[in-house]
Amino acid sequence: MPDANNYKITALLFAALMLACSASAMEVVSPDGRIVFAVNLDADGKPHYSISYGVETVIAESRLGIRFKDHAGVEESMREVAVERRSSDSVWQQPWGERRDVRDHYNELMVKFASAVGPERHFALRVRVHDDGIGFRYEVPEQSYYDEVDIVDELTEFDLPRAATAWWIPGRGWNRYEELYRTTPIDDVSLAHTPVTLRLASGTHISLHEAALIDYSGYMLDQRRPGVFQTNLAPRSDGVRVKARTPFVTPWRTIQISPDAVGLLNSNLILNLNEPNVLGDVSWVEPGKYVGIWWAMHLGINTWGSGAKHGATTANAERYIDFAAENGFDGVLVEGWNTGWDGSWFDNGSVFSFTEPYADFDLQAVSDYARKNGVRLIGHHETSGHVSNYESQMSAAYDLYESLGIRQVKTGYVADGGQMQRVDANGVTHYEWHDAQFAVNHFERVLTEAARRKISINTHEPVKATGLRRTYPNWISREGARGQEYNATWAKPNPPEHNVLLAFTRLLGGPMDFTPGIFDLLHQGPDSGFRVQSTLMHQLALYVVLYSPVQMAADLPENYGRYPDAFEFIVHVPTDWEESIALTGGVGDYVAFARKERDGDDWYLGAITDEEPRAISIPLDFLDAGRDYVATIYRDGDNADWKTSPYDYVIEERQLDHSTSLELLLAAGGGAAIRFRPAEKAEQQ
Amino acid sequence: MPDANNYKITALLFAALMLACSASAMEVVSPDGRIVFAVNLDADGKPHYSISYGVETVIAESRLGIRFKDHAGVEESMREVAVERRSSDSVWQQPWGERRDVRDHYNELMVKFASAVGPERHFALRVRVHDDGIGFRYEVPEQSYYDEVDIVDELTEFDLPRAATAWWIPGRGWNRYEELYRTTPIDDVSLAHTPVTLRLASGTHISLHEAALIDYSGYMLDQRRPGVFQTNLAPRSDGVRVKARTPFVTPWRTIQISPDAVGLLNSNLILNLNEPNVLGDVSWVEPGKYVGIWWAMHLGINTWGSGAKHGATTANAERYIDFAAENGFDGVLVEGWNTGWDGSWFDNGSVFSFTEPYADFDLQAVSDYARKNGVRLIGHHETSGHVSNYESQMSAAYDLYESLGIRQVKTGYVADGGQMQRVDANGVTHYEWHDAQFAVNHFERVLTEAARRKISINTHEPVKATGLRRTYPNWISREGARGQEYNATWAKPNPPEHNVLLAFTRLLGGPMDFTPGIFDLLHQGPDSGFRVQSTLMHQLALYVVLYSPVQMAADLPENYGRYPDAFEFIVHVPTDWEESIALTGGVGDYVAFARKERDGDDWYLGAITDEEPRAISIPLDFLDAGRDYVATIYRDGDNADWKTSPYDYVIEERQLDHSTSLELLLAAGGGAAIRFRPAEKAEQQ
Repeated sequence: MPDANNYKITALLFAALMLACSASAMEVVSPDGRIVFAVNLDADGKPHYSISYGVETVIAESRLGIRFKDHAGVEESMREVAVERRSSDSVWQQPWGERRDVRDHYNELMVKFASAVGPERHFALRVRVHDDGIGFRYEVPEQSYYDEVDIVDELTEFDLPRAATAWWIPGRGWNRYEELYRTTPIDDVSLAHTPVTLRLASGTHISLHEAALIDYSGYMLDQRRPGVFQTNLAPRSDGVRVKARTPFVTPWRTIQISPDAVGLLNSNLILNLNEPNVLGDVSWVEPGKYVGIWWAMHLGINTWGSGAKHGATTANAERYIDFAAENGFDGVLVEGWNTGWDGSWFDNGSVFSFTEPYADFDLQAVSDYARKNGVRLIGHHETSGHVSNYESQMSAAYDLYESLGIRQVKTGYVADGGQMQRVDANGVTHYEWHDAQFAVNHFERVLTEAARRKISINTHEPVKATGLRRTYPNWISREGARGQEYNATWAKPNPPEHNVLLAFTRLLGGPMDFTPGIFDLLHQGPDSGFRVQSTLMHQLALYVVLYSPVQMAADLPENYGRYPDAFEFIVHVPTDWEESIALTGGVGDYVAFARKERDGDDWYLGAITDEEPRAISIPLDFLDAGRDYVATIYRDGDNADWKTSPYDYVIEERQLDHSTSLELLLAAGGGAAIRFRPAEKAEQQ
Repeated sequence: MPDANNYKITALLFAALMLACSASAMEVVSPDGRIVFAVNLDADGKPHYSISYGVETVIAESRLGIRFKDHAGVEESMREVAVERRSSDSVWQQPWGERRDVRDHYNELMVKFASAVGPERHFALRVRVHDDGIGFRYEVPEQSYYDEVDIVDELTEFDLPRAATAWWIPGRGWNRYEELYRTTPIDDVSLAHTPVTLRLASGTHISLHEAALIDYSGYMLDQRRPGVFQTNLAPRSDGVRVKARTPFVTPWRTIQISPDAVGLLNSNLILNLNEPNVLGDVSWVEPGKYVGIWWAMHLGINTWGSGAKHGATTANAERYIDFAAENGFDGVLVEGWNTGWDGSWFDNGSVFSFTEPYADFDLQAVSDYARKNGVRLIGHHETSGHVSNYESQMSAAYDLYESLGIRQVKTGYVADGGQMQRVDANGVTHYEWHDAQFAVNHFERVLTEAARRKISINTHEPVKATGLRRTYPNWISREGARGQEYNATWAKPNPPEHNVLLAFTRLLGGPMDFTPGIFDLLHQGPDSGFRVQSTLMHQLALYVVLYSPVQMAADLPENYGRYPDAFEFIVHVPTDWEESIALTGGVGDYVAFARKERDGDDWYLGAITDEEPRAISIPLDFLDAGRDYVATIYRDGDNADWKTSPYDYVIEERQLDHSTSLELLLAAGGGAAIRFRPAEKAEQQ
């Protein structure tokens, strides 16, 4: 907690400073004084903003505003009618997360605008400036000129420095986000899904995204003219971007700012801008590790559909349950348990039943067997994006799972045609983007329905993560990027840099169910072109690097028996943390995290590199001072290389303390994973 | 003309062949048999098509269909109800153009579909397969289920080979198309404006575009999933893509196919797919060359607005008229003649009057002076995209120009905010994309209004060219790409490859008012960063390479006096052609064209290269056999280089005939321009 007295003095000084400034510029400054957000109106009454960071302009004068279909918008001919200021410094707790305590410290400016000419219109811009970045949103109150409005464009612009490197995925398809990240000059970014991460010429790193995407459409960053990006909202199936009714607020438009790359990873901005938990007691939301009948389908060993290779049989599920119980895993996912998988389900989700198991899968028996063994079955609902079919069965499906004691469901929205399907009352099918308002609202309906049955949701092919896990802690994880499945048999595998890039882009939005831990890296043989492009140690490190409260051990159980000493790390690593610290890294190059387990004293460290081998030096000052630790180090061997020697690894124990600086050698495509136990406790084990 | 008997036999054989095939596959084959277009329905009644070229698959099985907002679309649950076949071989004439006679030879297939289940729906797919490519369009007849429909998506997909190089500009901003072309693997194309040109691994070149964009929205090529592109129609301001009323037809979706790069340049596909001239006698549409008060504004020597540097003064206009008359130019453009240029006109076109000249510009006197000197004033209407302001004055503005004998107007739609403005009856402003239905229809209204006064239109910041010059021959040219103005003082200049790329991309749509002929290449000094990145000879070659019926000599008159021998080429070169032949080239590398003047015997040749110097060998077999020609060759000197010696050039005369193969050395950023005169006529001169 911050020193309360100190804080008050700062706040007073700050308020005085603000009063002095506000007449001219409507500025608001971060608590540490480095970030300045300025709002102004030009001669035509067009609202603009700009952002500076120290002496650097991060966002030059950029437009603000919203356009409506049948009404005058709030974009020009406006005047300022009121300015409100507020400061806040508080700490809130995550029921689960990468850290328990989250400090939320910001200065807030709210500027209320009204029309200067034309129909009477009102809106406000609320800005929160934290030390780690900015969020601002539009707030449209009740007013006489309109109540229901169709938003056809949001004008929020970001006039970014022209000399910058961007890491991004293209906005094509508005679906899935399953793309390799591009590293390009900013000028080559056309339409990109957020988060988009940028390194400015000064070395300052920023990331553009949004927080609290509720009852609105997600935006893509659209370079409308050189250097000037705009929020391009995903359209609804009727072409309107958002249907709104006053009063409403938009999601927060966020700009994380950091002097270095890892600063972005230590930011809580997105979470802080979301509303607190609305579900009350969420002790039933259970982080943990799981295995499942899944990778075998991607390898072609099993099928989702029925027949000789059907994966979801009672016997096979019980085999996985045995493996989970033996190794202390919490859950077993079974995909392909329900009828509907035998046709072209990829683009026709109407075939799925969410209550009827295949004949060779005894759902009741399997879930009973799981619970008897201290494991829970994880439910699975692949919808193929046919939302109408899913919503018509949703209550019954969750009731069924609740009755079986199932606490977590992995949902899927593959929709190979690109869009979700919604059938209206007239039987007409409409196609909705995964990140447009309909889908956003569907996901919220799912969370609410599931929460009533104490069920958590792990969404695959989801809308992007915008921190809603704070508000709905049962949104326990999601996909939303190119995960491990791309290393199976049907795609060009993820290159070594991919996992590093995920940490600096996708993961800024929130947890990802990447499904790490493939041990059979050359599953199709060394010359097949299909393989995992990492060392074995890199796979271990991912459990620490790519945060998710639910982590899969994704490989076939039999493959873990080949490297039992390495598997030990997966058995031990927690998925819920007291604290997390991004220690060092460069976007797309390498990254290292330290995380402390919740309700315990152990620390874990994960470090991964791209295709370049690297030596990194990590001061262990995150460890408790004055305490000795036994570190079990899982590291690449001297000849390790993802291409030629992915299994060259060393597991060694060392005594270390917080004054030590640890030298880690990471092989090409390699990584390191470390478990630190206080020495006194390690001896007890 | 083709041999009629031969043709009939081929057609009969062909019809027989088709009957044999149609039961299984609904195929249609190009007259030369190389291109095969196949239509089929999958098990769900989804229409698909594919295209092969010899043994090569150019477009794999790809979806077809249209989705409507409130009605079931024509995309699935369809059945085939009728197939009609037709062949046609005809020649039509262009009133002006790159060639007089255009052969239009194709086999046509029309497949009529009706709903198999659901509401009764009908549509047809009309396919025309030429030897140089394919056009297909949807035709939606009157039917009981709907008359007015809102199109929310057009499903036309293009499943393209994954191993291809693409030349493209990003679809950002949906405006202006003023971008540098990208050369990338096809996978890196996200959203691109058409034409998009591709080289497949086999060496086959294709280009995707559209023809006859009327009462519809333009599409961008959107890579929805890897390798699979879809027509992404520009939305109207209300979010709907197109508002249609049955019966209607869509623009043709075109795929030009050629074994080599230059084959694309010799294709007439786009023109052939447009409807014939609807304006009747268009002898008043006058190709020609012009100068104008324009470049001086881009250099900052003059201003559009009033004041000491105002360019459009009576005296200055008369100076340009004198220069035009002395050198045989046809027109003089005067920009900044009308009131409105003194504020922030860039994003507020409502300021412009189209009838009120500035006080220092005597419109009547200038136009009289021009006509007295055998020159016509060229009108100028910069709208800044404020269409409502323009349309409210359009009739009066054209009446004024007609009364002054003005035959051509350059229009402009800068709209720096990115979109056109339309004010509705309630005073609400709507923002419309330059390539969406409203703009498309606006441009058609302009052409119709102008044609009534025998006025031709040269549109800047236009919708893309889709061959409508055939239907409206008064649409004499347009911009729609990064032109010469980018080589002035306010942008990163066009790199040497840009002009070569234009020929293989933008120019496939139709003529471009690039405004070549800058002679003061280093106008801001050698170290300013602002300059023209070409040799002087490259500037000459552009008059032949980048076809437009109206060509500007864009530089200040005084600059032509510094190289009078080179200027001679511009004085002689025609802008209207009997025939044009793309001789050789590689996309983005180099290109050479030969063109024969209309109503004369002279041939002209233009060749340009990118940043690489090149030796190219050109057989002169396009010249009349048995005739001697005097060639005046304007070529780069031995030490020429755009960077270091752009003015090293040689002008030489040679006797040549059609058996000669000419070796041309093109410097880095260089070019060559040649005038071939029959020897007997050259002697007379």
